[in-house]
Amino acid sequence: MDVYISGVGMTKFGKSANPLEKMMADAATLALKDAKREKVDAIYIGVMNVEEFVGDSNIGALLVDTLGLAGVPSTRVETASSTGAGAFETAFYSVASGHMKNVLVIAGEKMTHLPTAKTTKILSEVIDRSERRYGATMPALAAMIAQKYAQAYHLSQSALEDVLSRVAIKNHFNGSLNPYAQFRKRITVEDYLKSQMVSYPLRLYDCAPITDGTAAILLTTEPTSIKVSGVGHATDTSAVRHRASFTSFNSTKEAAIKAYTMARVNPSDIQFAEVHDAFTLFEIIGTEDLGFFQPGKGWKGLQEGVTQLRGKLPINPSGGLKSRGHPVGASGLAQLVEIVWQLRGEAGEEQQLKRAEIGLAQSIGGLGNNNLVTILERSDRKRTTGSGWRLSYRPEIKVAKKASGPPLEKGAGVLETFTILHSPPEGFLSPLTLGFVRTKRGEIVMACNPDYRSPEQLKMGEKVHLSTREGLYVFEKLTLWSRMKRWFKGQGNS
Amino acid sequence: MDVYISGVGMTKFGKSANPLEKMMADAATLALKDAKREKVDAIYIGVMNVEEFVGDSNIGALLVDTLGLAGVPSTRVETASSTGAGAFETAFYSVASGHMKNVLVIAGEKMTHLPTAKTTKILSEVIDRSERRYGATMPALAAMIAQKYAQAYHLSQSALEDVLSRVAIKNHFNGSLNPYAQFRKRITVEDYLKSQMVSYPLRLYDCAPITDGTAAILLTTEPTSIKVSGVGHATDTSAVRHRASFTSFNSTKEAAIKAYTMARVNPSDIQFAEVHDAFTLFEIIGTEDLGFFQPGKGWKGLQEGVTQLRGKLPINPSGGLKSRGHPVGASGLAQLVEIVWQLRGEAGEEQQLKRAEIGLAQSIGGLGNNNLVTILERSDRKRTTGSGWRLSYRPEIKVAKKASGPPLEKGAGVLETFTILHSPPEGFLSPLTLGFVRTKRGEIVMACNPDYRSPEQLKMGEKVHLSTREGLYVFEKLTLWSRMKRWFKGQGNS
Repeated sequence: MDVYISGVGMTKFGKSANPLEKMMADAATLALKDAKREKVDAIYIGVMNVEEFVGDSNIGALLVDTLGLAGVPSTRVETASSTGAGAFETAFYSVASGHMKNVLVIAGEKMTHLPTAKTTKILSEVIDRSERRYGATMPALAAMIAQKYAQAYHLSQSALEDVLSRVAIKNHFNGSLNPYAQFRKRITVEDYLKSQMVSYPLRLYDCAPITDGTAAILLTTEPTSIKVSGVGHATDTSAVRHRASFTSFNSTKEAAIKAYTMARVNPSDIQFAEVHDAFTLFEIIGTEDLGFFQPGKGWKGLQEGVTQLRGKLPINPSGGLKSRGHPVGASGLAQLVEIVWQLRGEAGEEQQLKRAEIGLAQSIGGLGNNNLVTILERSDRKRTTGSGWRLSYRPEIKVAKKASGPPLEKGAGVLETFTILHSPPEGFLSPLTLGFVRTKRGEIVMACNPDYRSPEQLKMGEKVHLSTREGLYVFEKLTLWSRMKRWFKGQGNS
Repeated sequence: MDVYISGVGMTKFGKSANPLEKMMADAATLALKDAKREKVDAIYIGVMNVEEFVGDSNIGALLVDTLGLAGVPSTRVETASSTGAGAFETAFYSVASGHMKNVLVIAGEKMTHLPTAKTTKILSEVIDRSERRYGATMPALAAMIAQKYAQAYHLSQSALEDVLSRVAIKNHFNGSLNPYAQFRKRITVEDYLKSQMVSYPLRLYDCAPITDGTAAILLTTEPTSIKVSGVGHATDTSAVRHRASFTSFNSTKEAAIKAYTMARVNPSDIQFAEVHDAFTLFEIIGTEDLGFFQPGKGWKGLQEGVTQLRGKLPINPSGGLKSRGHPVGASGLAQLVEIVWQLRGEAGEEQQLKRAEIGLAQSIGGLGNNNLVTILERSDRKRTTGSGWRLSYRPEIKVAKKASGPPLEKGAGVLETFTILHSPPEGFLSPLTLGFVRTKRGEIVMACNPDYRSPEQLKMGEKVHLSTREGLYVFEKLTLWSRMKRWFKGQGNS
């Protein structure tokens, strides 16, 4: 059964004095009003971590009660930071089943009321335990990916800086036009370069902010002007280091294949997209994973202006997570609300795109291991594809082999990527140097290094010595001095 | 599209040394093996509070990775303590939509590793904030409902004790035959009466235990021996006191109407049921809400042996939550696994029912505000109902009117129900007397009373004086002494 959208709503993102359920009810009320409806058959609620951010369980009952809809089935859905998209997907199937006619999806998160250290700790819990215990945060892992991307595509440190700053500047510009955005301030390269280093090479302006925000969408079986044409969802390994590639996300590619196939469209059919830019580089990787650009060419598309608001393929016309804000559970649904506004021509004079008949949203859960792709289109869009339609999009999906055998204790390795984290979680020294080290037998381990504090002192691809200390891997540079030190300690093996 | 069950699995309930994801993967592996399948199109995961019990977010990615199924879409679902049933319902719609062919549902919770006070605190977070701040726990609210039930149906204190003990004894007997049960010890009336008072009138043997456990079910579009014939889900007010009735749950009744209607069966067609007996009385209320007995007659059905293992309508042949154990996120799915085993004739010699062609499970989320009813049947069951089928089940659903106007400060009221809680959360004095007081203008407020410590000193229906202290309502008996005390304090108003 085909599924349509009959109403959308969103609260202004930023810092809110309202409790979460009130904020969520506000967005829901706007969506119901937009659809001219009062009753629904079911509600799906996207919240990532209401337990720790707010201290409530059973948000399902709390929210229907707040809405004055006690009785209506209410189910909470969670897929880490893609939760809003996950709730939408889940609701989509309930409507597509024919058992439900009108289903409300509400997504939100309240985060700004906690101290940043506590918020960072909560957000870090989406990271695999084996990487989290080194002090790895989301920015730290994203930074290690950024380093790897720069190395793989031969971007110098300043070229990478240029690319990242362009994403931030573009999205802040777009957000400046969006009345729902948390940040409406345009930024310059100078602002970007002045912003503090969070986890080398990522600065504050590379990271989406901490935000309160909610969004809602009403799905229906009755044809409206907006059709849900494709949804796709895929996961990946829990630990980042267990993947075959650090410069793309399999979960985006596999989710995209499913969404394109269901919608019977190809990347070239998409006119604009909301891409999960929790970290600036993720927008670049996203546009490659989605098939808009070849691998390693996404930054060029950005540089050439293709992805700007008035470019050929606008990416994040809303300002993205970077500027609209990133209430983790809400972002995936907020992207879809923005797409509906564009498709309906309701995006506001300065933001409205000229070509807006079909749009795509990509949402990342965790560090790229629970991703969703959703395609919405105008019901009156002329489809040129007939029965001969074929998916032209053929992304390379590499899967790593898992290493077997007992864990390595010490020996030589190669530094695959690293970061220097300047705001580690409580209990870790700052700055904290973290790296992925490839061992002799080919597996990749996470390792820390308490000595090196400047990025110039480390080089990806160089040989390091790996040892264990208090149950953690530690890597050291193979300098003459470190060799001597180990020799003096009577640990002559390297 | 019709939905069938191709595989089920469960771990032994109790205390487990394994991490949650390993326990969940074990149940899932059993279900996959049972269905002779290795791949699935999607996974739905039921966990109520993985964040606080275990400290992980993103269980979706963690679990697919543990299963060696990284890539497969994985979505976490939560509906408080009915989460297992909520995940099943959600997966059901995804298969019914025709977009998925084989979908795995996995539900679990790990609880025993935390101190009981911490577990109680986490479980209490499903309670409405306005009632939780008085120190109300799940047993306390269930106890207030038990008192109200006894009053409504003229059961003396000893008659109530008799009813409750019979539920516990029956379910412990059934559980003694179940190799998956946490408690396999039969109990006597003496054991029951010796067990400690948790929240008057509920004893330890009235409450389901704290448990680690997981269950899994594989759903499919391919016809198998077991068909999912009906699912229903409904909510209620977040706060218990805002309901029109305390002796039944609207959410069970509304969920049952939907499930019976989808399955095109009536309560009289059901041959056995798993009913959410987190507290003994809830089994009695459940059998009434489901239409098996008239309101107020459920305890008689129990007394007459109807609901025993070899009775006409066995309730909780598995031992129920009481004896199998209650890992909150898993229970709703474990009930369905038990039903499948009965329907297939695989329940084990001593437990197997003779009539087992159609069974029902009822699961309660929170304090009766996120409930689900699911009906499974053998695909070869002879249906006697044709196109003239009609739902004969017509439960009374009363909805309370919300009081308006500013909150009352003090005055006379009537004590609707009360409990004396012997294991309140940290920060509250023990024992803690809590009650619902109906004010002059008809609204019900929660109130505490620091003075009364023996149940004989309080009586439901009696007049009390209501005042506020530190932002909480306090009730006092209208004795001559209390009147004088207030008069001396110059607060002559009563």
